[in-house]
Amino acid sequence: MAKQDRAIRTRQAILEAAAKVFEERGYQAATITEILTTAGVTKGALYFHFQSKEHLAEGVLAGQDHQLVVPSRTCKVQEIVDMSALHAYRLQTSPMVRAGVRLSLDQQANDLDRSGPFLRWSEVTVDFLEKAKQQGELLPHVVPSETADVLVGSFAGIQAMSQAISGYRDLGHRTANLMRHILPSVVLSSVLATVDFSSDRGAAVFAEVTQSLSEEDLAAIAS
Amino acid sequence: MAKQDRAIRTRQAILEAAAKVFEERGYQAATITEILTTAGVTKGALYFHFQSKEHLAEGVLAGQDHQLVVPSRTCKVQEIVDMSALHAYRLQTSPMVRAGVRLSLDQQANDLDRSGPFLRWSEVTVDFLEKAKQQGELLPHVVPSETADVLVGSFAGIQAMSQAISGYRDLGHRTANLMRHILPSVVLSSVLATVDFSSDRGAAVFAEVTQSLSEEDLAAIAS
Repeated sequence: MAKQDRAIRTRQAILEAAAKVFEERGYQAATITEILTTAGVTKGALYFHFQSKEHLAEGVLAGQDHQLVVPSRTCKVQEIVDMSALHAYRLQTSPMVRAGVRLSLDQQANDLDRSGPFLRWSEVTVDFLEKAKQQGELLPHVVPSETADVLVGSFAGIQAMSQAISGYRDLGHRTANLMRHILPSVVLSSVLATVDFSSDRGAAVFAEVTQSLSEEDLAAIAS
Repeated sequence: MAKQDRAIRTRQAILEAAAKVFEERGYQAATITEILTTAGVTKGALYFHFQSKEHLAEGVLAGQDHQLVVPSRTCKVQEIVDMSALHAYRLQTSPMVRAGVRLSLDQQANDLDRSGPFLRWSEVTVDFLEKAKQQGELLPHVVPSETADVLVGSFAGIQAMSQAISGYRDLGHRTANLMRHILPSVVLSSVLATVDFSSDRGAAVFAEVTQSLSEEDLAAIAS
C-alpha cells in the first residue's frame, strides 16, 4: 500500500473512532485519549491529522457533507425529495453521518461552530430550489432561501423525533410525510403529481447511486 | 410562609438549578453534587423531592408541559399557530422551557426516555387538529396524527437551527415561516386567509395570557 493510501486510511480510522466516541459521550465529555484507544493509532498519528478535539469534531461534522450526489432528474423537485430520502437512509445506515448530525444538534458543544452543517445544507437546497424555479416547477411567490431554511430545519427535527421514538426505524415514513406537508405550498400541483414520495425511496436512490462505485468507495460510504 | 409553600419553593429552586446544570453540561456529564451546590439546598431536601438524576431530568422535561393555555379562538387553526408562537417566545425567554427542550434533544441521555415530550406535544396538537377538522377548517384528506407528527418534529428542528445560527433571536420569524409552509397543505384556503402568522405573535399571545395572572404565578412562569 502506498504511503498516501495508508495516511488516508489512518485518517479515516481516526474519524470513525471519533464519530463513535462523540456519539456515545457527546462532544463535551469525549476525550482524545478515548478516541486514541478506540482508533488504535499512536498519539503522533492522531495529532498529525487533527490538532485538537475541535478539529476532530469538525472532521466528523464534515462527514455528512460528503454527500452521495443524487442522480440528475428532469424534475428538480424530485431531486430535492431524493436528497432528503437518501439522507434519511444514510442516517439509518451510516454511523459517520449519524454522528455528524448528532454533533450539529449537540447543544452542549459550546466551543464548536454548529451552524456550519445547517448553512451548508441550506445552500445546497437553495441551489436545487433555484433550478426548480427556473424550470417553472415552483409557485411564483416562493423565496428559495426561506423554503430551504424550513426544509433543512424541519428535517433536523424530524430525524431527532424519529431517533427518540423509534431509533430511526420510522424515518423513511416521517421524511416522506414531511415532504408531503411542505411541498404543496411550494410546488405547482401539476409537478407535484409526478413526484415519487414513497417511504422506501431512500434505499432505492442509494442502490442507484452506489451501483457504479468501486468496492473501496463503497466501504468508505458505509462507514 | 406555610410549610407547604416552602416545600413548593424548594422543589422549584431545585428544578431551576437542575435546568441550569443540564443546559450547561448535558445530561450525561451533569452531577447531583453540582445541582446541589447551584440550588443551595441540603442533600436531604433534594432527595426528598427527587430520588435520582433521572427524576430531576424528568422534572425538567415536564417543565415544558406546564404550558400556558392558549386563549380560545373561533378559528382552531389560529390556536395551533398561537401555540407554536407562544412556545417559540417561551423558548426565547424561559430557561426552564429551554432546558426541557434541550434535554429532549440530548441524544447522549440514553437512560432517559426522551420520547415523552414529543408524544405529549403530538397528543395536544392532535386534539387541536381534531377540533379544527370538526369545524370544517381542514382539507378533507388530513390525518390529524400524521400532521401533528410533522408539526411537532419540524418545530423541534427549527428551534435547534435557530439556536445554532442566531441564539434563538430569529425563532419568531422561523416559526412563522414554518407554519406558512405547512398549513397550506392542511387548511382550507378561505380559513388560511383569516390566520395571523406574524413573527411577533408569540409576544402578543404571552401578554394576553399573563395579564390576568398573580405576581407569584408570573414569577414561576418566568423561571
